[in-house]
Amino acid sequence: MQGYPEVCVLRLGHRPGRDNRMTTHVGLTARALGADRVSIAGDASNSRDTIRDITDRFGGPFEVELTEEWRPLVRDWPGVVVHLTMYGERVQDVEGAIRERHRDEGDPLLVVVGSQKVPFDVYEASEFNVGVTNQPHSEVAGLAVFLDRLFEGAELDREWTDADRRVVPRATGKEVVPIEEDGEHGSGEEPS
Amino acid sequence: MQGYPEVCVLRLGHRPGRDNRMTTHVGLTARALGADRVSIAGDASNSRDTIRDITDRFGGPFEVELTEEWRPLVRDWPGVVVHLTMYGERVQDVEGAIRERHRDEGDPLLVVVGSQKVPFDVYEASEFNVGVTNQPHSEVAGLAVFLDRLFEGAELDREWTDADRRVVPRATGKEVVPIEEDGEHGSGEEPS
Repeated sequence: MQGYPEVCVLRLGHRPGRDNRMTTHVGLTARALGADRVSIAGDASNSRDTIRDITDRFGGPFEVELTEEWRPLVRDWPGVVVHLTMYGERVQDVEGAIRERHRDEGDPLLVVVGSQKVPFDVYEASEFNVGVTNQPHSEVAGLAVFLDRLFEGAELDREWTDADRRVVPRATGKEVVPIEEDGEHGSGEEPS
Repeated sequence: MQGYPEVCVLRLGHRPGRDNRMTTHVGLTARALGADRVSIAGDASNSRDTIRDITDRFGGPFEVELTEEWRPLVRDWPGVVVHLTMYGERVQDVEGAIRERHRDEGDPLLVVVGSQKVPFDVYEASEFNVGVTNQPHSEVAGLAVFLDRLFEGAELDREWTDADRRVVPRATGKEVVPIEEDGEHGSGEEPS
């Protein structure tokens, strides 16, 4: 997110077919809540294409990549590695230290989210193993709460570039307006 | 959650088979992040059983129910109805008003989460239509951020009853300890 050091989400444990929707939701959540890119380990071309399509329509910048070799990404990451796991330290206890490294000291952040089975070396290679509760729930939910706390809500005000449409917040109903090429907003409900 | 008026999550739009995992994650996220129960519209017995199994093992109280007739639940809800949608008002703008109704004035809260298509009458029947960002991402992520903000993090300190195990937060590795019937914690790593 603009004004912050890089945040990359690494999605481990993707099983083609079975995990397509969960992986897509991990990627879209990363995008919507302030991460700069998602790297997906495994054959997730379906999810990658969906995330790219959303970025094309609703804006970026946001990058998606597939990787077979995720271990070098973790091992050689030039900053802080955080692994989200229900076995980790409580997020409320460590989020301040992580923010200090990321926002204050400028270290890029790699956020690792798995599914069922994460290899033990990920626990060892991560500077922080973090639990968004120590209860079993959802890697999507854990990532969402973690990012919202990391940015302390600033991600909700993120601006988007190269979008071709924009949703206008409304108390009732749906309003989507086209964005013209010069960057001005068109009018959705009352075309002129 | 103890000390708060009821929070019920209503999951709409469940398609058997295709949505099983998303619906399970909605339910587990509701449980882990402070809701009291989830009501699932449609034939989601698979998800219900998984959520019950987790509650049996990791504790409650938390209720799961399936419903064919969800409209009366919305129509007759004796409190505030919040519908999470990317078309809604910005969560950062309305969360204070919702907390005031829920925590301060004591109104039970119904949180409606859909999937692709939510009938228009849900928008009209909801006192608040709320967007956790106005971007497309995940109903699981939206629910998670909403609950964390609703409770202002207090849900992370929730205590659990009738669990048979407990995860001990750790900087590295996994520790799960059995909970004995008298409520004392057994020792996981160093059995006495």
